[in-house]
Amino acid sequence: MAIGVHILAEFYECDPNLLATAENIKRVLEETVGEAKLNKLHSHYHQFEPHGATGFVLLAESHISIHTWPEYGYCALDIFTCGEEGDADKAFELLKEKLKPGRVTMEKKVRG
Amino acid sequence: MAIGVHILAEFYECDPNLLATAENIKRVLEETVGEAKLNKLHSHYHQFEPHGATGFVLLAESHISIHTWPEYGYCALDIFTCGEEGDADKAFELLKEKLKPGRVTMEKKVRG
Repeated sequence: MAIGVHILAEFYECDPNLLATAENIKRVLEETVGEAKLNKLHSHYHQFEPHGATGFVLLAESHISIHTWPEYGYCALDIFTCGEEGDADKAFELLKEKLKPGRVTMEKKVRG
Repeated sequence: MAIGVHILAEFYECDPNLLATAENIKRVLEETVGEAKLNKLHSHYHQFEPHGATGFVLLAESHISIHTWPEYGYCALDIFTCGEEGDADKAFELLKEKLKPGRVTMEKKVRG
């Protein structure tokens, strides 16, 4: 039973300033959801002090989450989509374009 | 660099009635977060029609998400925690007790 696809990605060597604020992360995630034509049900962003952010978009297709550690230029991404094949890949490519990691590791897992 | 632990779990052969409503899923997740002594920043639940639910808890330690397919007695769980080792395992065990899956597959991944 294949329900959907879950991409777990580690983005390294990102711009720490980009990862620092919930405002930036919100812009990146909301743009990605729009451009990938995913269906947002709800989203929430949290600013950590002194820096770092976390963001979550609940989708009709499942979810996208991001947790950032600007001090390491690192963020952890999860893209879980059900339905249209290729949706998770599309969102992954868009996030890569926007967050510009110097180095990426990625694992794709079939859920269900 | 180990930032945290991410458990991806597939719960099969759950009670479809338990998985059917956002109300049930909310109870299960909020109890789990409380009992595992995790720090909730935000949570959100969505009811799908005719049945099925999705829930997300944003934690100071990262997140827990659940997506249910009552028609298959199946739900997909993600437990991502940073900080205290064992937090993700504790939440995983609590979710297993509460959702009573007949069969489980689980994968634990170090993030970062």
